Amino acid sequence: MTERAPYRTIARVHTDFPSKFGVPRQSGLVPELLARVVFEPDFRSPDAVRGIEGFSHLWLVWEFDKSVSGRDWSPTVRPPRLGGHDRLGVFATRSPFRPNPIGLSSVRLVSVESAGEEAPVLVVGGADLVDGTPVLDIKPYIPYDVHPDATGGFIQTHPESWYRVSFPPELLGRVPEDRREALLGVLAHDPRPRFMDDSSRIFGLPFAGLDVRFTIDDTTVRVVDVAPLTPEPGAAWPGYR
Amino acid sequence: MTERAPYRTIARVHTDFPSKFGVPRQSGLVPELLARVVFEPDFRSPDAVRGIEGFSHLWLVWEFDKSVSGRDWSPTVRPPRLGGHDRLGVFATRSPFRPNPIGLSSVRLVSVESAGEEAPVLVVGGADLVDGTPVLDIKPYIPYDVHPDATGGFIQTHPESWYRVSFPPELLGRVPEDRREALLGVLAHDPRPRFMDDSSRIFGLPFAGLDVRFTIDDTTVRVVDVAPLTPEPGAAWPGYR
Repeated sequence: MTERAPYRTIARVHTDFPSKFGVPRQSGLVPELLARVVFEPDFRSPDAVRGIEGFSHLWLVWEFDKSVSGRDWSPTVRPPRLGGHDRLGVFATRSPFRPNPIGLSSVRLVSVESAGEEAPVLVVGGADLVDGTPVLDIKPYIPYDVHPDATGGFIQTHPESWYRVSFPPELLGRVPEDRREALLGVLAHDPRPRFMDDSSRIFGLPFAGLDVRFTIDDTTVRVVDVAPLTPEPGAAWPGYR
Repeated sequence: MTERAPYRTIARVHTDFPSKFGVPRQSGLVPELLARVVFEPDFRSPDAVRGIEGFSHLWLVWEFDKSVSGRDWSPTVRPPRLGGHDRLGVFATRSPFRPNPIGLSSVRLVSVESAGEEAPVLVVGGADLVDGTPVLDIKPYIPYDVHPDATGGFIQTHPESWYRVSFPPELLGRVPEDRREALLGVLAHDPRPRFMDDSSRIFGLPFAGLDVRFTIDDTTVRVVDVAPLTPEPGAAWPGYR
């Protein structure tokens, strides 16, 4: 075995997702989702990001700390995109349940906040991350990372579903204006944690301090209520009811 | 601080580079370079790679264990591509000297060896890795990773140099036939560790058990000798003389 020291958290990502429920399955699916990458005090230096604005995209290397407990992994997993029926090798998927809980996301660099106590803060688009996720590394996305001819296995043959979203205007009005596009994008991608055929069930998506309640059938996500998110202390996040 | 356990080595990469000298600066630069990803016994299972052949490219998440000692990092580094003169923030580069010594390479999946004691072994093309590099994770490269419009900062404005390679046939004959294209590719990219203006100097590139000696001027790499690689026990690899 290799002896290595534990890796350090260099930053944390701040997003509108207090829990895994509703987080897009891959980075880039909902480009309107913005996130702030806030460096930990030991790594908070304008020098360390000098020149980063020259890159349009970044890689975030992060840790699955919310969805994985301890060292759970299995050689095979059931990707949600395959309906949860078929097993694939863990290294043929991006499942969180891996030997090392390392996540990888490509995000668009929107801006670098250079003022304020937390500066420099990286504002990024398309992040598929739970609020507070620890970041292990940030690297520029470079032209050698582009493989336009890449074939995507089960991901190419089972394209992400898009649902119609029915969101009554009076409910949409309860969502902060600058979060509406992102929320519509999240809903259109079917935010349920796992495929379930029950159109009468009401799901609750915690997002930006709100509990967004919806039903879903074969074609349409229907929002039925938007309420402030008030989890009981110590309770699990709403998820589905 | 986050408490986390040290990550485990799941596999090791085997390549023709016994040392960092000559390793391409990025994955994919020399597609002919083949590498074998050999799983450690605890992770050696055909199940764990089931379905991986459906993907043309993979991500290797690995550790800079050869070029970095301990926890050396600096907020700024001097990318070799900028001639070693200009400083950039470490997170705007892929420098090995980072807070967490995590490397990221996209490689082409050439084949999966399913027979033999070490099976399953992944054979990949374009790897920019030293022989024996520990791998922390393997993930499929998926269509969401493709950002054809990505702008590449200093990497786009300072394209990789290509040199003419003069390789006398009698010397090329000493290189195993299946390694010749890869070696020519490595030489064409200027394998010197750092820009040095000395056309009389003879460099020694350790590659595939050989010591490939060459000079280099503004336009041309000239191979002057190819000899078996026989480092003295305990000695550093040849590098340059």
